[in-house]
Amino acid sequence: MSKAPVASDRDVAAPRPYALAVDAMGGDRAPDIVLAGLELAADRHPTARVLLIGDEVALKPALARYPKAARICDIRHAPASISMEMKPTAALRVRGSSMRLAMEAVASGEALGVVSAGNSGAMLALAKIIVKALPGISRPAMVAVQPSSRGDSVMLDLGANIACDARNLVEFAVMGEAFAQAALGLPRPTIGLLNVGSEDLKGDERLRQAAERLRESVLAEQFHGFVEGHDITAGTTDVVVTDGFTGNVALKTGEGALKLAFGLLKNVFQTNLLTRIGYLLVRPGLERMREWIDPRRYNGAVFVGLNGIVVKSHGGADGESFASAIDVAMDAVTHNLNDKIRARLDQLGMLGADTDATPANAVAPEPVS
Amino acid sequence: MSKAPVASDRDVAAPRPYALAVDAMGGDRAPDIVLAGLELAADRHPTARVLLIGDEVALKPALARYPKAARICDIRHAPASISMEMKPTAALRVRGSSMRLAMEAVASGEALGVVSAGNSGAMLALAKIIVKALPGISRPAMVAVQPSSRGDSVMLDLGANIACDARNLVEFAVMGEAFAQAALGLPRPTIGLLNVGSEDLKGDERLRQAAERLRESVLAEQFHGFVEGHDITAGTTDVVVTDGFTGNVALKTGEGALKLAFGLLKNVFQTNLLTRIGYLLVRPGLERMREWIDPRRYNGAVFVGLNGIVVKSHGGADGESFASAIDVAMDAVTHNLNDKIRARLDQLGMLGADTDATPANAVAPEPVS
Repeated sequence: MSKAPVASDRDVAAPRPYALAVDAMGGDRAPDIVLAGLELAADRHPTARVLLIGDEVALKPALARYPKAARICDIRHAPASISMEMKPTAALRVRGSSMRLAMEAVASGEALGVVSAGNSGAMLALAKIIVKALPGISRPAMVAVQPSSRGDSVMLDLGANIACDARNLVEFAVMGEAFAQAALGLPRPTIGLLNVGSEDLKGDERLRQAAERLRESVLAEQFHGFVEGHDITAGTTDVVVTDGFTGNVALKTGEGALKLAFGLLKNVFQTNLLTRIGYLLVRPGLERMREWIDPRRYNGAVFVGLNGIVVKSHGGADGESFASAIDVAMDAVTHNLNDKIRARLDQLGMLGADTDATPANAVAPEPVS
Repeated sequence: MSKAPVASDRDVAAPRPYALAVDAMGGDRAPDIVLAGLELAADRHPTARVLLIGDEVALKPALARYPKAARICDIRHAPASISMEMKPTAALRVRGSSMRLAMEAVASGEALGVVSAGNSGAMLALAKIIVKALPGISRPAMVAVQPSSRGDSVMLDLGANIACDARNLVEFAVMGEAFAQAALGLPRPTIGLLNVGSEDLKGDERLRQAAERLRESVLAEQFHGFVEGHDITAGTTDVVVTDGFTGNVALKTGEGALKLAFGLLKNVFQTNLLTRIGYLLVRPGLERMREWIDPRRYNGAVFVGLNGIVVKSHGGADGESFASAIDVAMDAVTHNLNDKIRARLDQLGMLGADTDATPANAVAPEPVS
């Protein structure tokens, strides 16, 4: 079955695809948080149809407790599931796992995207083998939205590829641009290449080559050149491009620093009676600030560059947080993320160019900790 | 002249060396901030002797305005100086620059350390050529103290080496341990290797090899294994070891995130009259918090692994901040940082082992921005 267009009923022969296939068995508290997330998502995406994949015996009575979720979900039985600790190579050998069946639903065109809170290493490996990379993309990457002083921005790769060459970084720029358009609604997002200095001569050959290619491409006007670590939270560019090792470290370092600031702040407010009164006076604003930078709000990293939308939720997510991951997937699906990527690759002459068929050095980061 | 021991007057033939040679001409507002920093440092290190190197005509009248600094400083004329924009290769060709003369004073044993707020790329290049690497160290690195939830910690490399192999990372662990002992006063600092996950299989071959070597070494008990980005500010280990690219990005990302938190907080307090009153009630604690994480307090990155103490102050430093860099240099000098490194290398059988004579891929980061 060929992949059906979004929300088109013109082709009467092919049934309208599910918007999402959801792995009901992934994450630390599956299937409960998955169902709680779908209950919230049903309000936000009432017309979406979801294929809920997992252990039918457990799912049927559980889904009955979430009436809104039940309205948008069809259950499909999966006889197996993949544990959070399983190595990717072992996970690939498990037949009939809920994660694999969800990927297969996307590969066959039955669903447009997949969301799972399961083992990220397994997820990346299965996605590459079953959903497969888009033509012209040698290395699918992990991308997510994060807070900055100038509003939300996106960064990639967050850990799918430890080592990257210039071509990979250019692909990340293309995918990051398309994702920023879909997730942030920016028509022409700006793009920065993460480096140790902003001068043209900084960094290694790989970075200088990637910068040169971007400067000479149709993305030239949106390409800001090199950015540094502090530019990530400053929001200097809408998209920050880097290799998966650096991106993973930067993401977690930024989150850790915000956590440090909140920890120190808590001590300040708990000093004495006066500071406790002070806390009461600023509490509404503080709560808004905390919500705005809440990692739960940013839950949902996309494995981008595949023939379908593949979204990873944090394994320790709660319902609200899993609903955010569904939002991310729905944004990508309804904004035709992959069509945007394809069009850009075509403009850049990168469709079918020298792609690297060797599997990327997969790691299994938790995108939001 | 052989290098004299610290503060020893027993060897009557050799004069007691200067504690520090200070480049008076480095930084955005030299020599003023240098002299203002020395004025503060003179109170903290009243018995230290400093060789102040720069343009004599400018320095003599300027120093007269800083009576405490004048008491500890001897001026040495340097006919040239190196600008902040000069490339390292060009800087190496400048004869008689204040930075070069300061390095030569350390190389000859006339001074035990050097402090400069000048061009960091030039500084690293001059230090490698004039002060030279310690026997057994193939790649001098950049290390500094930073805040964490559990108190101060240290991280290296912060940008001296873009690409590193397993041997380099082990050297960084040795130098980081010695620096944490000298700068933080910890007898047995714990060490973590920065990675994208804490499991043994994460990361690349280079990281796994470095971890294996550390686990089998005399540092085994202090070695905590892999740490992740969020562990830096959590203070999971006293020392965080990484390559210069990742370290530079992580340092600046962490600083940027703290800045983001303070910016958001400022907005919260400025919302209305009540929040302004709230601010007044918590101000003393907030000021302490801000001081504690103030980058000025952490100014002074050490180029470690050289035959002398080489400290880089931020180029945009003020007097207080330059005084912090002098503190860092004095800590390293008085705690015999290099003797500790030499002893560890000896225990690890790394003295005179396969060092890499090719110059490291130097970058010129601003360690604290």
